[in-house]
Amino acid sequence: MGRRTSTPEELFSSACNGDRGALARVLSLLERGGEPARVLGRLSYPKSGAAYTVGLTGAPGSGKSTLTSAIIGHLRKLGMDVTVLAIDPSSPFTGGAILGDRVRMQDHATDDGVFIRSMATRGHLGGLSLATPEAIRLLDAVGRRNIFVETVGVGQVEVEIAGKADTTVVVLNPGWGDSVQANKAGLMEIADIFVINKADRKGVEETRRDIEQMLELGDMPHDAWQPPIVRTIGTTGEGVPELWDHISQHRATIESSGALTERRSFRLREEMRAIVTQRLEQRAKELCTGDRWEQLQSEVLSHSIDPWAAADEMLRGIGA
Amino acid sequence: MGRRTSTPEELFSSACNGDRGALARVLSLLERGGEPARVLGRLSYPKSGAAYTVGLTGAPGSGKSTLTSAIIGHLRKLGMDVTVLAIDPSSPFTGGAILGDRVRMQDHATDDGVFIRSMATRGHLGGLSLATPEAIRLLDAVGRRNIFVETVGVGQVEVEIAGKADTTVVVLNPGWGDSVQANKAGLMEIADIFVINKADRKGVEETRRDIEQMLELGDMPHDAWQPPIVRTIGTTGEGVPELWDHISQHRATIESSGALTERRSFRLREEMRAIVTQRLEQRAKELCTGDRWEQLQSEVLSHSIDPWAAADEMLRGIGA
Repeated sequence: MGRRTSTPEELFSSACNGDRGALARVLSLLERGGEPARVLGRLSYPKSGAAYTVGLTGAPGSGKSTLTSAIIGHLRKLGMDVTVLAIDPSSPFTGGAILGDRVRMQDHATDDGVFIRSMATRGHLGGLSLATPEAIRLLDAVGRRNIFVETVGVGQVEVEIAGKADTTVVVLNPGWGDSVQANKAGLMEIADIFVINKADRKGVEETRRDIEQMLELGDMPHDAWQPPIVRTIGTTGEGVPELWDHISQHRATIESSGALTERRSFRLREEMRAIVTQRLEQRAKELCTGDRWEQLQSEVLSHSIDPWAAADEMLRGIGA
Repeated sequence: MGRRTSTPEELFSSACNGDRGALARVLSLLERGGEPARVLGRLSYPKSGAAYTVGLTGAPGSGKSTLTSAIIGHLRKLGMDVTVLAIDPSSPFTGGAILGDRVRMQDHATDDGVFIRSMATRGHLGGLSLATPEAIRLLDAVGRRNIFVETVGVGQVEVEIAGKADTTVVVLNPGWGDSVQANKAGLMEIADIFVINKADRKGVEETRRDIEQMLELGDMPHDAWQPPIVRTIGTTGEGVPELWDHISQHRATIESSGALTERRSFRLREEMRAIVTQRLEQRAKELCTGDRWEQLQSEVLSHSIDPWAAADEMLRGIGA
């Protein structure tokens, strides 16, 4: 018997009815971009808005995966569903943060309350920073309520993505300095909660003082929230209930102050602007080909017009 | 007596006649952007193409300024004019790499054959990466023939800018590893010539071996040119004549092979593409304001349309 390929609409509908295989497939479609991704975006958007997102970022090796696994265990004990979206911009062609995925999957693979998915840029226009909010909305739309967005490293894109969660957790280690040096300021800015993971090692107090000092120096506004510093040991689960309590407190604080609504509106506006820019870049790429473009290039190379005049000439047709 | 402000055309004409004050003023106009910058771009372009550019980049503290000063001294002995454009993206508001500027000015301030100028982003659209080629063309158009483009650090923009010269010199020090770690691959890719400056210090041979090993591993095509590694001591001028000989050899090689023409064409095409993108980004910024934009934002926030649909709606008017 022949088997018809399911449409994005059908897969979405199945995913909404709790079909995990269908959910995995719509996420793959989303990742690949194109028209099916747009269809899914349009379907998800009206149904999204109920999920809460927690961003988790930190240097590779800081123990984020183990910590995430411990958080999953804790939330399952509390009877809560957990979804993890692992973002890995460094593996654009392999399909993402496979390693952490596998490790955690062993613990939670047979548990229907847990859904783990890694994501990388494949064909999605605008890359991970635009694909991630769409994936979150899709997970949200099909009924996932607690979504952890974990980034593999502390690169600019990763910090940006983690910083767009409702609550952002920055994972450090005792003696953290060098591993995050390149983007320390970025991490300081996005953190709602600091975790000193592997807290059974030396240097916890120094690291705590470092963070406190940078927070004082930075004088960053965190919606009148003073980022707490939590010690954890991911391998034993020590400190994980405290970490979850802090996440819940942060959520309650920003929900009651109105800061959550503000944050989300701000994020959506930023996203709209980024999409406009992405669309225009796409258009520029399309424009910068063809006979007219070749001819303008010749004219520039022969010094009869300058490159700015050529660009303006090229753009005249689209009113930009 | 009242004094009429000179037009960009008048200043450009004076600069072409050797007026250094006028040259400094047109460069300032260019840096500030807007219509006067466009006028200068249009005036310069047909008159440019005769100058040769040498990019100099390396970590802060590698002794680039002292080395540049020694190169200036050497070229002046050979009876050649020298122009230095110092690029500093890290000081967007102060007017650029003042420190190095001042130091070198003391040596060469009274010499008409030397022109030194620092540049930072002020109002120029597209920032330094688009302003720099325009400044080079302006210097070229007014008759400067040997233009050194020195960047203050090894950030992404700086490496990109230095890499767009006809010959690119990467300045390292013995035991260089840490200072350029963040952008080692970028430096390897752009280098036509490596300089180990401060070669009176320990570790010269190790550094040389490091570079050779990375070049072998990288297997980068350099127009069939094998990047030489030159030792210099900027403070005494040791090695500077050899460095200049290598620069001249590289120039002769790429001139006779046709690689120089190819490089310059490639650069111009890249620049055109970057200008098109910049123009579209500018247009996006203009578009993302106003009543229609506000209304679309409200519709997105109330979940009646999704952000991608809103962006497309916004762009419909300009055919993008």
